[in-house]
Amino acid sequence: MLNHAEIDNLKNWIESINEFNSTPEFGTTRVLFTPVEIQSREYIKAEMKKLNLNVHEDAIGNIYAVLEGRNPQLEPVWTGSHIDSVLNAGMFDGVVGVVGGLEALRLIMQLEVRPERSIVLIVYTSEEPTRFGLSCLGSRAMAGRLTKEDMHQLLDKDGNTLAGVLDSLGYSRNGFERLAVARGSVYGAVELHIEQNGVLDKEGLPVGIVKAICAPTNYMVEVQGCQSHAGGTSMTARRDAYMAACELALSLEKLARESLSEYTTVTVGWVDVVPNAVNVIPGTVRFSIDIRDVDFQSKNILIGRLEEEVGRIESVRNVKIRMILQNHDIPMKCDEGIIKTIENVCLSQGIDYRRMISGAYHDSLFVGEFAPVAMIFVPSKKGISHSPDEWTDYEDIAVGVDILANTLLTMANTIEGSANA
Amino acid sequence: MLNHAEIDNLKNWIESINEFNSTPEFGTTRVLFTPVEIQSREYIKAEMKKLNLNVHEDAIGNIYAVLEGRNPQLEPVWTGSHIDSVLNAGMFDGVVGVVGGLEALRLIMQLEVRPERSIVLIVYTSEEPTRFGLSCLGSRAMAGRLTKEDMHQLLDKDGNTLAGVLDSLGYSRNGFERLAVARGSVYGAVELHIEQNGVLDKEGLPVGIVKAICAPTNYMVEVQGCQSHAGGTSMTARRDAYMAACELALSLEKLARESLSEYTTVTVGWVDVVPNAVNVIPGTVRFSIDIRDVDFQSKNILIGRLEEEVGRIESVRNVKIRMILQNHDIPMKCDEGIIKTIENVCLSQGIDYRRMISGAYHDSLFVGEFAPVAMIFVPSKKGISHSPDEWTDYEDIAVGVDILANTLLTMANTIEGSANA
Repeated sequence: MLNHAEIDNLKNWIESINEFNSTPEFGTTRVLFTPVEIQSREYIKAEMKKLNLNVHEDAIGNIYAVLEGRNPQLEPVWTGSHIDSVLNAGMFDGVVGVVGGLEALRLIMQLEVRPERSIVLIVYTSEEPTRFGLSCLGSRAMAGRLTKEDMHQLLDKDGNTLAGVLDSLGYSRNGFERLAVARGSVYGAVELHIEQNGVLDKEGLPVGIVKAICAPTNYMVEVQGCQSHAGGTSMTARRDAYMAACELALSLEKLARESLSEYTTVTVGWVDVVPNAVNVIPGTVRFSIDIRDVDFQSKNILIGRLEEEVGRIESVRNVKIRMILQNHDIPMKCDEGIIKTIENVCLSQGIDYRRMISGAYHDSLFVGEFAPVAMIFVPSKKGISHSPDEWTDYEDIAVGVDILANTLLTMANTIEGSANA
Repeated sequence: MLNHAEIDNLKNWIESINEFNSTPEFGTTRVLFTPVEIQSREYIKAEMKKLNLNVHEDAIGNIYAVLEGRNPQLEPVWTGSHIDSVLNAGMFDGVVGVVGGLEALRLIMQLEVRPERSIVLIVYTSEEPTRFGLSCLGSRAMAGRLTKEDMHQLLDKDGNTLAGVLDSLGYSRNGFERLAVARGSVYGAVELHIEQNGVLDKEGLPVGIVKAICAPTNYMVEVQGCQSHAGGTSMTARRDAYMAACELALSLEKLARESLSEYTTVTVGWVDVVPNAVNVIPGTVRFSIDIRDVDFQSKNILIGRLEEEVGRIESVRNVKIRMILQNHDIPMKCDEGIIKTIENVCLSQGIDYRRMISGAYHDSLFVGEFAPVAMIFVPSKKGISHSPDEWTDYEDIAVGVDILANTLLTMANTIEGSANA
């Protein structure tokens, strides 16, 4: 019988990691391989070692902390999340799954008998696309969806390549060719995460079990109109790149609202107007499009309609619109076996729960390509995330860690069959 | 009889001024009181002095070059324009009226007899709002519409006040209280300028005579929604500040297209999205609105409808929209007497012309508050302005200078009555 998670441990770890923050007065900003992010890595590795876990890193900086099982030749059980953030974010996104995993391992290690399978806690590199514009770098590489060539091409805003940054930090010597994880080599993976939506908070439920994860499709869009004088150029003569960009954004929003899928979202989060002056008609506008859906076919239908809108707007407004596809990821159905294990843990502990969809993507989206996965959600206050106002009560996190620890233990002690049997 | 303008002079002056440019590879950028703008002032003052004109400056940096008439007690005739620019602009906007005025004075000084009235060439300070967010600083102050308090409150992006910058450059000692120009103290003013629209170019006409100048109304708008996660927040739960900003921009555009005025334009040229990240729903969007109309009543009707749209969007999208009025300027009807003088010059020289509206505003908008004004336009290729692609043929500029010089001479030799008699 496992002890309950200690709230003080969780609070201390979360607040300590939050000290590594480049915008302390404006929420949490911890961008991949910036000084604060590197410090947070050193901190979490030190905490892992305090628990006598074996710690190592791979060629893209994923951190592995291994609790060795009695039968280390069996496929291990995985848990973990990320510690990087978007700009001006909250302190819980990702971090809860990392320190929650650490607390779960601590609880499991208090038992007299070690579990059969090894349990591995992973800190995935750069779940957020903040620095290189592409999300889930670490888990994407594990899934074989980030090639060495990609790593030489991915650029941050200062023109550094991902490969160059990894070289300079010494990660590359860990062998890029060993990054991809073979299908079947992981018994199952469970990620604890804040919900980042308001369903649990609204319904007063402590736990959500994720049945499917929405996957993003991302574009960088460039609208080319004609830069000209705000007063001199009549409304009929102008080719205003910004008005065209606005029309495309609202068309996208309308398509999402008309979607027949169970869960579809679209976001224009990044916008760059050139030359960006009060009295000049914008000649160029660049912006990001983020489309997420739990249904791949529905997403493809929306994208087809969006392309029609692009053609219509180009023709009506006499502008050129270039859509550069960044990634087109496939939604993930979670493993029914692991879901049932989590449900049984909830039932045995008397914890109320619901199955739900994750509108946010997570590293589990890519881990799911080579292993059975599921996720445990804890409530986000008012559903706010990627914001300084993001909040989850520590008591709620502790409940999630209890479910996680018991799920990991059950999985690690299941020798026959696979998790999705 | 005046000689014709010399193209080589005009070309040399325009190209020399264009050397003072902080973005030489990306069009022309010459922002008020930056090093390149100060150098361009020194250059034009030196060229004025070469022609033996009396040069002085006032407390806001307006430059005056005086060709003294035989009856200097008579109200003088004015001409002039500006040499500052927007970001990444062209090399003709404003500069044509300054060097064109200089060439006109040179031609008039070649005559054996000086004109009766003095003729003053003025370089107005900061016609563009690039640095302090407010246009026509020099001519606005002359019209008594820029108080000393305003000058202490106007801030550039580095937090400098206009008053502080003027102090540091020594302009203030010229006496702020002497800036405002008394009504009736100027006989009439004519400004030569590029059209900045494509009417003359399309119709193959060398000259436009401005009958009215559109005036801008400017707002800074702040849309406050709720920053949150792009995937985690469902379409119905989100309060997306950017989509609200797009809807307001398109509503504004629709209102302009429906306007019954002879000439209405609206522009959203500056946009700032916060936090501006691919996977975060924008919580705050700030943007500029520029509304111009040749008809003040029509502009006020449009603004009233815009405010209704603001209320509607706030309510439908559950966002807060704050509209901060920057300026609400009154359109200017040009002086019929000066217009007729220009027309007579055109007819006597066999130059085809049309009367037209100026969609762009100019210093003449404010000079018109204390003196009779009119403007001479020369063609802009394809109507492009405020862009590196701005172009006017030197031959076309020379024709404009010939019309300007003869108009100034006629006005300066008219002793009886006022220009708008």
